[in-house]
Amino acid sequence: MSIIHPVILCGGSGTRLWPKSRKDRPKPFLPLVGECSLFEATLERCAKDNGFAPVTVVTGAAHRELVESQLLQAPDATIIVEPAARNTAAAIALAAARLPEDAVMLVCPSDHHIADSDAFRRAACAAADLARQGWLVSFGIAPKWPETGYGYIKAGEALEGGFKVDRFVEKPDLERAKAFLSDGGYSWNGGIFAFTAGTFMEELRAHRPDIAEGVVAAVEKGRPDGNCFHPDAASFASIAGESVDYAVMEKTSRAAMVPVDMGWSDIGSFQSLRDALDGDDSGNRTAGNVELVDCANVLVQSDGPRISVIGLSDVAVIVDGDEILVTTMEGAQKVGKLKGATDQ
Amino acid sequence: MSIIHPVILCGGSGTRLWPKSRKDRPKPFLPLVGECSLFEATLERCAKDNGFAPVTVVTGAAHRELVESQLLQAPDATIIVEPAARNTAAAIALAAARLPEDAVMLVCPSDHHIADSDAFRRAACAAADLARQGWLVSFGIAPKWPETGYGYIKAGEALEGGFKVDRFVEKPDLERAKAFLSDGGYSWNGGIFAFTAGTFMEELRAHRPDIAEGVVAAVEKGRPDGNCFHPDAASFASIAGESVDYAVMEKTSRAAMVPVDMGWSDIGSFQSLRDALDGDDSGNRTAGNVELVDCANVLVQSDGPRISVIGLSDVAVIVDGDEILVTTMEGAQKVGKLKGATDQ
Repeated sequence: MSIIHPVILCGGSGTRLWPKSRKDRPKPFLPLVGECSLFEATLERCAKDNGFAPVTVVTGAAHRELVESQLLQAPDATIIVEPAARNTAAAIALAAARLPEDAVMLVCPSDHHIADSDAFRRAACAAADLARQGWLVSFGIAPKWPETGYGYIKAGEALEGGFKVDRFVEKPDLERAKAFLSDGGYSWNGGIFAFTAGTFMEELRAHRPDIAEGVVAAVEKGRPDGNCFHPDAASFASIAGESVDYAVMEKTSRAAMVPVDMGWSDIGSFQSLRDALDGDDSGNRTAGNVELVDCANVLVQSDGPRISVIGLSDVAVIVDGDEILVTTMEGAQKVGKLKGATDQ
Repeated sequence: MSIIHPVILCGGSGTRLWPKSRKDRPKPFLPLVGECSLFEATLERCAKDNGFAPVTVVTGAAHRELVESQLLQAPDATIIVEPAARNTAAAIALAAARLPEDAVMLVCPSDHHIADSDAFRRAACAAADLARQGWLVSFGIAPKWPETGYGYIKAGEALEGGFKVDRFVEKPDLERAKAFLSDGGYSWNGGIFAFTAGTFMEELRAHRPDIAEGVVAAVEKGRPDGNCFHPDAASFASIAGESVDYAVMEKTSRAAMVPVDMGWSDIGSFQSLRDALDGDDSGNRTAGNVELVDCANVLVQSDGPRISVIGLSDVAVIVDGDEILVTTMEGAQKVGKLKGATDQ
């Protein structure tokens, strides 16, 4: 097998884990599960020791310093510094346009948790094999519950090591999500993709020539700077912001998927964070100076003062600097709407 | 009518409102309801302007400074500084032994909230009239729910302005408490008493001569110091600690009660504190920097950092200095058992 080129997307700044995540301290760079950050864990999964080519990180200028501070273990990494945020189609194309046409790219978000790295790498190899045959491959993540917050992938005809994609399905309502689960042929779309750089650019040119041309121009007029690459700002700014799903994956006739069950979580809420952490016998997850009495399935984390909690189940109590959040797990979806999260 | 001598008991240091109350900052001295402390509000209810004699405060050495700092509005008050804590029988006797025999004493805890001061004073006058006739009078507080945390008083034969006490009842279980409420003849025993100093000492001598003699000796050998009085430490230390209820009220044949409905609360838990405060349309009570989303009947108080709460009902979130407490209202009974409350 030829080597896989990891492309790690490190953009955006969600507010759903506020106050742990802040504007100047976004989610990928926080040690939410274990001792290293989600970004560092992503690097580790795609490390050279594990048979991968040096990584390409695509990020914005705002996060460049954070990226560099956490890239110490990957000195041969390349950082593509986006002059503006233009969503995932353009971000991936920036990396694709700079790689050889036959290079197999493995596109990974930087803020997901994957408990089973071996399963991840096995799926990466299967996806790379299909990518070399000209497929654009999505990881199809084994769904664990009828989640309404994710898109789904319906598997079609079998391929070696995977399936053709029958269709991509937008976030369903609960009834449909339940039907997907009992059907068995549906996976979660976790935003992890494999394709050769050439195939990707070809398909992007076919379906969104504007984005493809804009990115090629931004790269041609771009400026290398040590291990960084700065695409041309004016060319890049004029590109339409579009997700890779809309721009390419849902349009191409060459979409495939590899099924994978790897303890995946997007850590998209405090409920997800709780579920990704190991609990005690009562399902409680704590960090810092915490005392619990009669609690079950709570997530209680303090970076300073003691938190004492009595009699609660399925709540999150997060103390971070000058902010304190107390929420039900259901209410955790609304964290991003709090004044604290939006005013920062 | 002759004047009433308020005797304010300022002892003990409960832990049930931890972390708002602390060992060095006990409950009576905190502004829990409104802008003045419970002690200051007690002084205000018994102020000279309202027709009372100068107050006597009975407190321990540990609280003397706090008492003095909050006594500025009552410069003619006397402070009896107990050399040791010996419960309420001895504390009341210290004041009684220093007053003329015919002085009507009104014994008030310093850490209760009373919303209706006029009702309090009407009851005080009725109780004083009975006290002058030789009765030992308890305030019988109109019960609002089948509380199992208070003692009850069963009213007997009618007197002018009150009733003889049929009997005192210890904290009942829920079934009995409900029966008391539907019976209608039961009141809460709020620990507010009126009697003449002479009657009290007489009954104490009859039922607990040891306590009476010990107090008289401690007063005789005591030392005045400005507006303070220091009972003799050795004499006082040898006295048995006993509540006035056990030592006198439940023993005497001269027990009477005046019924009163005055918006009384002992603020004995965060649930009581919540109920004593005015709420918004959803029953929420907040203080400090607080944002609520989808909450009902919560008590959320911060002395510093912002607290954001989502989706919770009937919980208390208390941030005080370096301590954070999150509890259900039911769990609030267990606050005193937390490490933070017991280790301080």
